[in-house]
Amino acid sequence: MSELVKEFNDYREKMNEVILSKNNLVMKRLWNLDTNTYEDGALDKKTKEMLGLVASMVLRCDDCIKYHLGKAHELGVNTDEMYEIFAVANIVGGTIVIPHTRRAAEYWEELETSK
Amino acid sequence: MSELVKEFNDYREKMNEVILSKNNLVMKRLWNLDTNTYEDGALDKKTKEMLGLVASMVLRCDDCIKYHLGKAHELGVNTDEMYEIFAVANIVGGTIVIPHTRRAAEYWEELETSK
Amino acid sequence: MSELVKEFNDYREKMNEVILSKNNLVMKRLWNLDTNTYEDGALDKKTKEMLGLVASMVLRCDDCIKYHLGKAHELGVNTDEMYEIFAVANIVGGTIVIPHTRRAAEYWEELETSK
Amino acid sequence: MSELVKEFNDYREKMNEVILSKNNLVMKRLWNLDTNTYEDGALDKKTKEMLGLVASMVLRCDDCIKYHLGKAHELGVNTDEMYEIFAVANIVGGTIVIPHTRRAAEYWEELETSK
Amino acid sequence: MSELVKEFNDYREKMNEVILSKNNLVMKRLWNLDTNTYEDGALDKKTKEMLGLVASMVLRCDDCIKYHLGKAHELGVNTDEMYEIFAVANIVGGTIVIPHTRRAAEYWEELETSK
Amino acid sequence: MSELVKEFNDYREKMNEVILSKNNLVMKRLWNLDTNTYEDGALDKKTKEMLGLVASMVLRCDDCIKYHLGKAHELGVNTDEMYEIFAVANIVGGTIVIPHTRRAAEYWEELETSK
Repeated sequence: MSELVKEFNDYREKMNEVILSKNNLVMKRLWNLDTNTYEDGALDKKTKEMLGLVASMVLRCDDCIKYHLGKAHELGVNTDEMYEIFAVANIVGGTIVIPHTRRAAEYWEELETSK
Repeated sequence: MSELVKEFNDYREKMNEVILSKNNLVMKRLWNLDTNTYEDGALDKKTKEMLGLVASMVLRCDDCIKYHLGKAHELGVNTDEMYEIFAVANIVGGTIVIPHTRRAAEYWEELETSK
Repeated sequence: MSELVKEFNDYREKMNEVILSKNNLVMKRLWNLDTNTYEDGALDKKTKEMLGLVASMVLRCDDCIKYHLGKAHELGVNTDEMYEIFAVANIVGGTIVIPHTRRAAEYWEELETSK
Repeated sequence: MSELVKEFNDYREKMNEVILSKNNLVMKRLWNLDTNTYEDGALDKKTKEMLGLVASMVLRCDDCIKYHLGKAHELGVNTDEMYEIFAVANIVGGTIVIPHTRRAAEYWEELETSK
Repeated sequence: MSELVKEFNDYREKMNEVILSKNNLVMKRLWNLDTNTYEDGALDKKTKEMLGLVASMVLRCDDCIKYHLGKAHELGVNTDEMYEIFAVANIVGGTIVIPHTRRAAEYWEELETSK
Repeated sequence: MSELVKEFNDYREKMNEVILSKNNLVMKRLWNLDTNTYEDGALDKKTKEMLGLVASMVLRCDDCIKYHLGKAHELGVNTDEMYEIFAVANIVGGTIVIPHTRRAAEYWEELETSK
């Protein structure tokens, strides 16, 4: 796994443990619900991860983008498909999405080269 | 066509004409580009319209939502699929997306009943 | 009840029924969770409703603002307290919050005069 | 004055009076400061109103947009200049700015025809 | 004081000095007003800092969050209360608030352990 | 050139190359259009860069801010003018713009001292 991907996953895991250790029920249930949201249903997982990704891009949440890039990669989204998702995000959300697209492209390269 | 749908389309068309009549090249080219973004490519039109819809929902743009609901309806998205898109938008964007989901649900009912 | 308040409540109730009738589990569970979030805990209900209100104001969600204004009114927030919440929202969120504050002030007057 | 412009100004004035009558000092001082921000300085008023307008457009605040359109109109911004401001807002903020641009264009026509 | 807290405070102080040295009156007055906003009034300081915090969380401003976490800590907000504020922010603002909650939780741990 | 400015430019250039190498036509055309938007027209370049900057500030996009600060610097915007742009952004967008203003002020100092 690339350093960039590992660093993201490690910090995420460490802080999730801290947060869950406080036993706030709303936070716990929201996180369970978040997981359920992306499971196969009328739409398949891959489509849902693409929806989660484009939503994260227009809301310009770098960590959310990284998370969904990882999932989309696992589920077999290819580079041409990925850049069409980037294109929708940039057209809907404007040029302020470009810097987030740069960081997304960097993370995607890492995922692709460390396959 | 339902009154709600007709009113949206009429105002949209009328004001698009006003804007295009001013011959601002950046606006014209952005609108062409917007149309191209949702054409079949590595991803098909239906998937792209769903991406445009979820992006519009989390950015809470009612008119953008209506536009993509209309397109998604034409392309055969069904009600179960639609509510899974709504679910992703509400989980990613939070309860502030709920009022927009109410208006989206109302518009979707109109599209479904006027088929 | 004032016409403005009644109209808001009626539309909200009508569309909530439409949405819940579709049996999307994520939407249902998110709504239950939303209700739980504002119950007495380490912080009391009144404080939590004030938190929900200021969050809705800076995110500029008029319907969310109306909902929390209604709840805050029921829980005994007074007008001086309310305007201090408005002040925090306007300082944090800037002058783009002002138009939403105008509509919030109008709705608050309705709640106060129809007591 | 056109009906659209009059309606906006009347509601704005009415609710400003309600808000100021509550004597919240933070709100009063913020509003004074808001007025000072757009006075001649190193940059002239016209430039500052254009800055306030483009900021309001990308933040998608229709009432803020109307206010700055009125001021820009008084200060002699012409239609070609106005559409270049619209273009910057649409490129930076993306296609979600388009519905606000439609309403801005409608209001601008009213200001121009009621000169 | 922890390294994370010290680093935040030092940069903040250094850049505030740079900004204030330019003598822009609007900036100076806005900062004074910002300070006044959180003083005891109809609502007490602690409540106002919690309002400022939840507003900063839903607007996803990490530095604003850190500032209000520091103030809330000084004013005696405890960990259970803090996580209920986090819960409101995550429900209102959605899962895009989670990465900011991770960084907030990390900073809060630092404040708690360096008491 | 200062280290901060060089680092920003290098990363930007490197990732732009990666993105353009994928030959997504929508992304390419959006970037061309972005360049055209800021060319002399009814409004001059300097005014347009100031518009792009204030829009980037209220949308709180640090990299967009750095880019427009660089362009504004090249086009002769002086420090008093710059701080009036900062003031508009902070008033319209609120105190959540302050942390971005700190980073903008730091970058501006670098541009000024490395002239």
